[in-house]
Amino acid sequence: MNRLISYSMNNNPIEHLIKRLAKLPGMGSRSARRVALHLLSDKDMNMDPLQSALQSARDKVEKCSTCHCLDVVNPCSICTHPEKDTTKICLLQSVGDVWAMERTGFYKGHYHVLGGVLSALDGVTPDKLSIGTLLSRLDGVDEIIMALGATVDGQATAYYVAEQIRKTHGDITISRLAYGVPIGGEVEYLDDSTLATAMKSRGAF
Amino acid sequence: MNRLISYSMNNNPIEHLIKRLAKLPGMGSRSARRVALHLLSDKDMNMDPLQSALQSARDKVEKCSTCHCLDVVNPCSICTHPEKDTTKICLLQSVGDVWAMERTGFYKGHYHVLGGVLSALDGVTPDKLSIGTLLSRLDGVDEIIMALGATVDGQATAYYVAEQIRKTHGDITISRLAYGVPIGGEVEYLDDSTLATAMKSRGAF
Repeated sequence: MNRLISYSMNNNPIEHLIKRLAKLPGMGSRSARRVALHLLSDKDMNMDPLQSALQSARDKVEKCSTCHCLDVVNPCSICTHPEKDTTKICLLQSVGDVWAMERTGFYKGHYHVLGGVLSALDGVTPDKLSIGTLLSRLDGVDEIIMALGATVDGQATAYYVAEQIRKTHGDITISRLAYGVPIGGEVEYLDDSTLATAMKSRGAF
Repeated sequence: MNRLISYSMNNNPIEHLIKRLAKLPGMGSRSARRVALHLLSDKDMNMDPLQSALQSARDKVEKCSTCHCLDVVNPCSICTHPEKDTTKICLLQSVGDVWAMERTGFYKGHYHVLGGVLSALDGVTPDKLSIGTLLSRLDGVDEIIMALGATVDGQATAYYVAEQIRKTHGDITISRLAYGVPIGGEVEYLDDSTLATAMKSRGAF
């Protein structure tokens, strides 16, 4: 036992908590240390409410078996909402994308969360995505809106999914989000491919 | 019930978790949403280990009644360590400062965590800091090292504590950390007061 203090030991709960926090997205070991201190400095005020929020989310939140979104009910409240247009499905990569889309308040149709995009490098094959459940809910659907990221992988995935849809439901309209200049974007600072796409897809003024 | 989805409801556990996470230091609502999604996307892999780390830290970590540091034992392993020099106490603002000081491996004495600095604006009065316990452990101590921040509040606090110490233990040496150029610091980018202090405290080359 050469170590001066027990903090440095691996089985120390403080050290263990810091390591766990550091695994969260966007956290490094410095910020994890800060958060751990914050939590431990006042257990009643800081630690307990977080723990009960985690426990309640853990117990109550589940994946919707239809659209793979997260909610406290299954099927989720979007899938069962009476005002949602059942003839439209917007295909998105993650639940966060659904939240972002819902925040706009613009789209009134249904969603389908794919759970990722195809990627040979990361070993994401079609069977790891929720393509099967998408294909099984296409009856009565008029339009699929591909809202996957405008990346190589996102577009390859959209292409693959579109192909699968056309095999069984050739009459469904498959659309995609418009590409172009982001609102608030300065032309000078746009990347070349966005600018080229925006020029190619230019519309009437 | 005008809302389209249950996410937006205040009593929704997802929303509640996001709000709780957003209260952690260094987190905003965007990063809290990302963390919540990460946790909920794979409860077994992401949520459960974090919860057990939190629970274990909650149960086992406590404040040392001597130095107010956090540890799994009380008195803490620094206070009871046989190789620590009992004649020196380094006064620090927070537990994070103790960890930082211990990481340097340079200092071999004891610590005392003050729990903050005096601040009229934030309502931090002397009785909210652990000044009393510091004064009660001064017998046999030769040196107090003031390692509070080089801010106005930090220095005012150090001055106040030094005054209290001198009242009962006039023979204790009270020192402070050296001020000057941080290692790796470029003179050009130093703030004026650091540069002035470094010039004033210059030493032999």
